[in-house]
Amino acid sequence: MCVFCKIVTGEIPSYKIYEDDKFLAFLDISQTSLGHTLVIPKIHVPNIKELDSDLVGPLFNLTVNLAKKITDALDTNHFNIINNTGELAGQSVFHAHVHIIPRYPKDNLTIKFTPNKLTPEEFKNLQEKIIKSLDK
Amino acid sequence: MCVFCKIVTGEIPSYKIYEDDKFLAFLDISQTSLGHTLVIPKIHVPNIKELDSDLVGPLFNLTVNLAKKITDALDTNHFNIINNTGELAGQSVFHAHVHIIPRYPKDNLTIKFTPNKLTPEEFKNLQEKIIKSLDK
Repeated sequence: MCVFCKIVTGEIPSYKIYEDDKFLAFLDISQTSLGHTLVIPKIHVPNIKELDSDLVGPLFNLTVNLAKKITDALDTNHFNIINNTGELAGQSVFHAHVHIIPRYPKDNLTIKFTPNKLTPEEFKNLQEKIIKSLDK
Repeated sequence: MCVFCKIVTGEIPSYKIYEDDKFLAFLDISQTSLGHTLVIPKIHVPNIKELDSDLVGPLFNLTVNLAKKITDALDTNHFNIINNTGELAGQSVFHAHVHIIPRYPKDNLTIKFTPNKLTPEEFKNLQEKIIKSLDK
């Protein structure tokens, strides 16, 4: 059983924030920032791509609700909601999960977007390639 | 009118990927990684906290669906879904939006989680503080 499934069953203890029949939220043991929380479906799926689409909306709806409440509790208005899918995206536990990371003037999370320059033709080719895939 | 509202009306051109009556997805001009896409509600709200909760689930459901299709089109299985809420979280356009960032062995996105050590007592206090806020 995966580590998050063991947290669901209680075999591994956790600091639970919220629980219902489908979802569980608990404090991330790494606490990248104070209040760093993970929201997971109780059912085991390796990543969000494999989650039943009926559960995706409710999972993120819960996540946004919890993000509001957690940041209220911790006196900040700022947060990131992050899902990592796949190793190259930084996923390390292969049970679908969403991070809520409250943000403060000084904290331990770094997100750096470095831009790439594309030509208008490269943009158009990319757009066409993606649009074509939507029909599949 | 904000820059994303102008993209919705067409006053500012964009490389659109998907559109319906409530949502729009278009290529991020910065292309942090190839296929970097923004998904937005057409209605102007400054951030995801202010979005009608009836739209939050559908917005992320669409986002996950598009992430699957975009990464299929671009031959990767890896992506990040990121929402930045507030300046300290890196939000720069104050119209709610969600990033889809396909990931590759070498790309221009850095996400670094540095852990903080909390004592069991600090964890318990944090847990209690957050749980208390959920009842409000």
